[in-house]
Amino acid sequence: MGICDIQRPTLVINEGQARANIQRMADKARYAGVHFRPHFKTHQSAEVGQWFRDCGVTSITVSSCSMANYFADHGWSDITIAFPLNVREMDDIHDLASRIDLGVLIDNPDAASALAASIATSIQVWIKVDTGYGRSGILCDNTQQITQLAKQLEQVDHLKFKGLLTHNGHAYHMQGHEAIRKIYAESTQRLHSVRAVLLNEGFDTIELSTGDTPCCSVVDNFLDVDEIRPGNFVFYDLMQTVIGSCSDDQIAAVVACPVVGMYPEREEIIIYGGAVHLSKDNIEMDGNRVFGCLAEMKGTSISSIRRDAPVVSLSQEHGTVHIPKDIMKSLHIGDLVHVVPVHSCLAVSCLRF
Amino acid sequence: MGICDIQRPTLVINEGQARANIQRMADKARYAGVHFRPHFKTHQSAEVGQWFRDCGVTSITVSSCSMANYFADHGWSDITIAFPLNVREMDDIHDLASRIDLGVLIDNPDAASALAASIATSIQVWIKVDTGYGRSGILCDNTQQITQLAKQLEQVDHLKFKGLLTHNGHAYHMQGHEAIRKIYAESTQRLHSVRAVLLNEGFDTIELSTGDTPCCSVVDNFLDVDEIRPGNFVFYDLMQTVIGSCSDDQIAAVVACPVVGMYPEREEIIIYGGAVHLSKDNIEMDGNRVFGCLAEMKGTSISSIRRDAPVVSLSQEHGTVHIPKDIMKSLHIGDLVHVVPVHSCLAVSCLRF
Repeated sequence: MGICDIQRPTLVINEGQARANIQRMADKARYAGVHFRPHFKTHQSAEVGQWFRDCGVTSITVSSCSMANYFADHGWSDITIAFPLNVREMDDIHDLASRIDLGVLIDNPDAASALAASIATSIQVWIKVDTGYGRSGILCDNTQQITQLAKQLEQVDHLKFKGLLTHNGHAYHMQGHEAIRKIYAESTQRLHSVRAVLLNEGFDTIELSTGDTPCCSVVDNFLDVDEIRPGNFVFYDLMQTVIGSCSDDQIAAVVACPVVGMYPEREEIIIYGGAVHLSKDNIEMDGNRVFGCLAEMKGTSISSIRRDAPVVSLSQEHGTVHIPKDIMKSLHIGDLVHVVPVHSCLAVSCLRF
Repeated sequence: MGICDIQRPTLVINEGQARANIQRMADKARYAGVHFRPHFKTHQSAEVGQWFRDCGVTSITVSSCSMANYFADHGWSDITIAFPLNVREMDDIHDLASRIDLGVLIDNPDAASALAASIATSIQVWIKVDTGYGRSGILCDNTQQITQLAKQLEQVDHLKFKGLLTHNGHAYHMQGHEAIRKIYAESTQRLHSVRAVLLNEGFDTIELSTGDTPCCSVVDNFLDVDEIRPGNFVFYDLMQTVIGSCSDDQIAAVVACPVVGMYPEREEIIIYGGAVHLSKDNIEMDGNRVFGCLAEMKGTSISSIRRDAPVVSLSQEHGTVHIPKDIMKSLHIGDLVHVVPVHSCLAVSCLRF
């Protein structure tokens, strides 16, 4: 379908730019000597997955059993589910572990016991460590609890204790390269400290896995980690430009939306493109909540992001966009506008059906 | 599937309560002598649609051509698409108008021209009027523009000018019955004024259609409108309790989520239930952003909403919930908790696949 035929809010992917983003991150990992296990929750697409394969990627990260099953069905045989083990899906986990190299995360002894009791086949287990984000994982300072959990895993033959895994989600709250590099250095140093304790306890190989697009985009020296797991970088988005992870022209996903209402007297238009298409994720720009910005396009490429044309509110299907006079003059009912989403992972998840 | 078998974030509907909510609104409309055309965007389900049929409902509102097609396929033959006419879907509109009684909204002469040019069959057309919300519609003060548009419609045989339609979305920003009633009275008085102008211009029948759950829940005297189109009331949600449209026990939709992480030291748990399940819609409660609250349940009924156990943040699949000590004591990894969504329309839209 050509862009001209678009009738409803539609995800427009710039394949060339997405492939360039993948190649750049794959090259970066290779030069740094770290294993590249990209997160596929951003695109959730077998077709985009193929673009990663074309860059030599063979192992991936997902955030649910459903995604793991989907990608296993599409030939991916080395998958980490980077989400706290959901003991209600043990049958699924068992089936997955029987047919692929599966990795799971644990930060709780009860979850480890449930895993040991339910899985009869070999499975890789990472201990999730909280190095500053404060979402999931055992606090890095709590080395006693981490050591206990590692010992618990070690007692079960088919649980293969792989190492320590963290996610620097707090890098998303930063702005600028220096702040992001500081988060990365601090977080990695904390992983190193925990590893040192475990090595001292007699564990022999402890891999370190880290992720997140801001750090992996900005950091050049990965400081002796074994694996990186960024995901968002394949498309990037408006939020990443605010954080400082990417330039405007690296963004590879926009949402084409029909103009359905024009209100020049209040400098606004209404687009067919709402919360169910873009998600209600938002960022602050110049003191205002923004749910996306219009972009000027050349084919599927962004020529420029119009930060003076922000999406200012979203209902279920409506989006309200502030439109400066110069754009309003050339707009008509039924035109398509292109919205750079705040958070491409969520917009893509909304629109992929 | 019983609740005990739930593995992933799952919508739990209290059918009895939803049916009671429907019956109550249907009765209210009947006593008031207004036509009841409920908005089906909240549930988007043929099965729930049947519950409305059981209460005598025969005409409905939707917010997209896709929904109109879905419900037309399920035997609904009188549908208004309460969304500004999307001229890029004219083929769909034409097909729909050929097989059912279809109503559309117009607030722009170009859209009216496109409709006149593309549709060869009879179609009902409402003029969308902005009576204070400030999203779509011609401003109620601009009676000249409204009259012009009405005359434009009148010139085309198969465009059946039906009347004036408004949506009091600004009622969602109110709290308390008095504030909601004031919005309703003001908005309806504005519709009356516009209708008076049109009658004066020689138009004979001008119906008035209004909607929104807060006003329709709270107002008893519908002040001479012809039709009401509320939608959210079938399930209600946390936002509606804050607005004052419903009591806690009228809420008929919660999301069951597995507990996947426990962090008693910071009084938080992580649930499998994130932005892709609950949406990122949020409200302010006690000065904090809240994305939902846990509920104590008896079967599928809410016994009490635990406003001291709010969902404080959402990632793509993770939800972070503040947990008071008394709840934490009895929780275990793998338990199900039940989240009252902030906005049931969006949570249901996320989870209905």
